[in-house]
Amino acid sequence: MRVGIAGLGSVGGALAAYLIENPMFAAAGRPVAIGGVCARDRSKARHPGLAEVPWFDDPVALAQSPDIDVFVELIGGSDGPAKASVEAALHAGKPVVTGNKALLACHGAALAKLAETKGAPLLYEAAVMGGTPAIKMVREALVGEKIRAIAGILNGTCNYILSEMEATGRDFGDVLRDAQALGYAEADPTADVGGFDAGHKITLLAALAFGYAPDFSAAEVKGIAEVQGLDITLAKALGYRIKLIAEADRVDGRVVVRVGPALVGLDHPLARAGGALNALFIEGERIGRIFLQGPGAGGSATAAAVVADLADLLAGARRPVFSAPAETLAPLTVPAATDALERVFVRLQVKDQPGVIAAVSEALAESGVSIDSFLQRPAEGMEGVPIVLTTHAARQTAIEAAVARMAALPALLQPPRLIRIAEI
Amino acid sequence: MRVGIAGLGSVGGALAAYLIENPMFAAAGRPVAIGGVCARDRSKARHPGLAEVPWFDDPVALAQSPDIDVFVELIGGSDGPAKASVEAALHAGKPVVTGNKALLACHGAALAKLAETKGAPLLYEAAVMGGTPAIKMVREALVGEKIRAIAGILNGTCNYILSEMEATGRDFGDVLRDAQALGYAEADPTADVGGFDAGHKITLLAALAFGYAPDFSAAEVKGIAEVQGLDITLAKALGYRIKLIAEADRVDGRVVVRVGPALVGLDHPLARAGGALNALFIEGERIGRIFLQGPGAGGSATAAAVVADLADLLAGARRPVFSAPAETLAPLTVPAATDALERVFVRLQVKDQPGVIAAVSEALAESGVSIDSFLQRPAEGMEGVPIVLTTHAARQTAIEAAVARMAALPALLQPPRLIRIAEI
Repeated sequence: MRVGIAGLGSVGGALAAYLIENPMFAAAGRPVAIGGVCARDRSKARHPGLAEVPWFDDPVALAQSPDIDVFVELIGGSDGPAKASVEAALHAGKPVVTGNKALLACHGAALAKLAETKGAPLLYEAAVMGGTPAIKMVREALVGEKIRAIAGILNGTCNYILSEMEATGRDFGDVLRDAQALGYAEADPTADVGGFDAGHKITLLAALAFGYAPDFSAAEVKGIAEVQGLDITLAKALGYRIKLIAEADRVDGRVVVRVGPALVGLDHPLARAGGALNALFIEGERIGRIFLQGPGAGGSATAAAVVADLADLLAGARRPVFSAPAETLAPLTVPAATDALERVFVRLQVKDQPGVIAAVSEALAESGVSIDSFLQRPAEGMEGVPIVLTTHAARQTAIEAAVARMAALPALLQPPRLIRIAEI
Repeated sequence: MRVGIAGLGSVGGALAAYLIENPMFAAAGRPVAIGGVCARDRSKARHPGLAEVPWFDDPVALAQSPDIDVFVELIGGSDGPAKASVEAALHAGKPVVTGNKALLACHGAALAKLAETKGAPLLYEAAVMGGTPAIKMVREALVGEKIRAIAGILNGTCNYILSEMEATGRDFGDVLRDAQALGYAEADPTADVGGFDAGHKITLLAALAFGYAPDFSAAEVKGIAEVQGLDITLAKALGYRIKLIAEADRVDGRVVVRVGPALVGLDHPLARAGGALNALFIEGERIGRIFLQGPGAGGSATAAAVVADLADLLAGARRPVFSAPAETLAPLTVPAATDALERVFVRLQVKDQPGVIAAVSEALAESGVSIDSFLQRPAEGMEGVPIVLTTHAARQTAIEAAVARMAALPALLQPPRLIRIAEI
């Protein structure tokens, strides 16, 4: 099996090194060779074994080369050369292995149709949770299972930043700059901190778990840039930690896919997954609750996921790209707004004057929202005092009404800040 | 695909119900029918859909029946009808799906050779961790990965009993009787509480992870019957919880496979896996540390693992039964005794007299073993007082010498009790 590798960044570089050093890897029992590589900058220092491997400047040309049997796409990006080269490989009937969550979350349905029409497998274990086999778990091990919900931490950069903000008390911008200097965050951090990367990943998992065609535009995505140190501190005082949670579940019979900051209890396994870890809960009707945790990134770990896909190709399994043949999959559409029950954490900055607590609790009571916990802290060098509270479960419309009432209180110094409490 | 199911207990019954209610399950896209069933007692109440399914009294006859394409063995036991029927199916070139860890841990190498000679897949996802895909993770997702260690809680019954002993303060025998009454433990609990079930499972995982033929006789197995309530209480006072830990790792270049009670820090994810949960750490060179947790048993959950194997058969993947073709696998032999470093928890029952602590600490110091923590508790209605301590890492020979010295102390009322501290 001759593999063409497009993209020689941390994952592609680690994959190339692995294949050069382990040409007959494990169970495969058949030699796997690199038939060609392609990357942006030919002049970079690479594994010496790559010196003899044919170089391509154009990933499409590599995908079409008669000297490769499998095309591995590690370029990234939902469009451009990644998409063009994957399409070229599939058009040529060649199996594709990719780690590109953006590509599949945005164009997965069309690519799956193309792959299935051409009889070419399209595998993507490396797209979610690095070397931790989340895709294989949902796509293969839980086939036939009725999955109720899937939720977790799917972006290591955000998890690292939130963990650092809590540990050091520094604010988002500061911690982000350090993370960039340390290589934990990209120079352009939007995909990570904007929640888009986690959104792409949960879109893929949701498609597999609930039997839809993936469609990233149906996901509701919020990032972590607006999380403040004071939210983290006060949430902790109430027994919670703020995490970027990616979730897909059935609400009122519809599948809801969303990413955003959310509170989880300090004792919850997701709260305990610190640093750059990724962690995922899958709840099914028969299997109960399965929890999977591991490093969500890293060149070598993610390359191991590509190797697992190559081994699957050698084993010759034929499955649909998603949970059923692509032409039978309905798109995962944006559900109409629901009025589901939810719990929220609210932070208010109020004037330090008598009657404020009464006014806040009245605003909630009038909306039919009841308070679960309530905390007023002494002011710390800022105008007014912070009040935080968590609610019991209430209809979204009731919570919106309560927020509107609180926002109108004369004692309020800033608009109310709301963060969801995850029910996982 | 016509499936023959031998064994209609909780797993077999749930599988039959699932296949009757989901004849065209998920991604398979091909109907799966039950071609025949076999169980000990024909008169038991079963799913009404089974009334029309051919009944066999003899599992070997079912395995050989021309009306089935796949044989599912859920009888259990390392020998007898389970082994005979699996062999018969493989001899007939029929794929086998089994949940039988005892059979594969004891005879896996021979069965794998037979399966590979006949070109018949032999799948066993249901053998370990019920519906939680531990086998698929190690066998497929981590193929090509150099695994360093694998350790976890693989027996739900023992985990339930230890959790209950801690929660209620009751002793092993009492809790076991209740667990039997509740159906959490078998009438004959030996396989579970003796550590054998966990031993079978870690034997399979070790074979896959380290590339050996499985051989249960190479595993070191201890059960939980000797764990006392006082061990649990005093370990907790030092910051630990006692769990039945199944481990496989490389010690001094040899693979060591063992099951036994061990201490884990109260904050460790394995300590936090309570009740009947199963949990597993896998540490690899490139993938880092992956953690997998889920219900380790349950009829429906384990049946879901069988369904996943059936879907794999339909997908047509061909892999070796273990990590490489069976004829190339060396047996996982008992390693010569090592003198590896380890940490232990020691409980002593001593006379309440001056100089005892000095004598104990001297016995340890003379053996070159240093103390990490030490606790003497007031006596509670028993002769003498309990002392517990944990050691820093020391050579096994040094620890044995220290134990011999402590055992010889005149103040000692009972032989020293030792429990390993797991390093996971």
